Amino acid sequence: MDILSSCYLFAGLSTRQIDNLFAISEESSVDQGAWLFYEGDSADKLYFLIEGSIELLTTIDNHIELPIMRLNSSGDCFGTGTLVDPFKYSLSSRCAEKAALVTIDREALEEHKGKDDEFSRILMTNLAKYYLSRLKEARQELKIHFKILFKTMRF
Amino acid sequence: MDILSSCYLFAGLSTRQIDNLFAISEESSVDQGAWLFYEGDSADKLYFLIEGSIELLTTIDNHIELPIMRLNSSGDCFGTGTLVDPFKYSLSSRCAEKAALVTIDREALEEHKGKDDEFSRILMTNLAKYYLSRLKEARQELKIHFKILFKTMRF
Repeated sequence: MDILSSCYLFAGLSTRQIDNLFAISEESSVDQGAWLFYEGDSADKLYFLIEGSIELLTTIDNHIELPIMRLNSSGDCFGTGTLVDPFKYSLSSRCAEKAALVTIDREALEEHKGKDDEFSRILMTNLAKYYLSRLKEARQELKIHFKILFKTMRF
Repeated sequence: MDILSSCYLFAGLSTRQIDNLFAISEESSVDQGAWLFYEGDSADKLYFLIEGSIELLTTIDNHIELPIMRLNSSGDCFGTGTLVDPFKYSLSSRCAEKAALVTIDREALEEHKGKDDEFSRILMTNLAKYYLSRLKEARQELKIHFKILFKTMRF
């Protein structure tokens, strides 16, 4: 239950609301090198890391891997495409070090959201905040690329 | 009122909910070349375009402008930092062609959100979906830059 309460997605929920989420969660494990999902797959599960390490990545021209993030901390979550229509994973996910995970099924989560507007509001507010911070990071990275491009063009 | 109901942020709201938003909105106009806000400013107003054109941009090293988006369509909205803690604009905004706007103050909107959990849930769900699609676009752009970089390194 601590895993769920330490995740940014659930900040601001009551103990009762976290308890209800815990009741629909499951534990699983995954071996190093195994893929959890691929970019574009139907997003059926939201994942939370207990221990181990998970890579999130995309590919360029379907063969060059571009790492986006590495998750190592207990409570880190991934697969948030599970929360946003059209419910697809926007990155691929591979286990970098044997990992223990908590998962919540999309259908169970949707049912839960339907029953508790306050829960949905808090969850989606936290998610929007997270996406905005990722968007700002991506824009910072783009700025670095543009700076390199401008320098290249100058000489 | 049509302006508000055509904005992606308010998709799924009831006519009553849109009416309530309309009641706290104001109309204003802005001249070509005028700045509406700068990146990092406190986000006090959410903006909706009636007519005209608005540029959203960031700067590299505080002097090179990097255009991010140009809004031309009635119902286009900007300044969504108004909806996300810590309530800062994440881009700068300049009027590209004399524009008529609808604005909603953050405080009035927050009060409104506090009274209607369903409204907040729908609003934040739409916002999260929008940010995710912008994040995917930014990642696509990064992929193009990496491809250019790989080609440059190869020769």
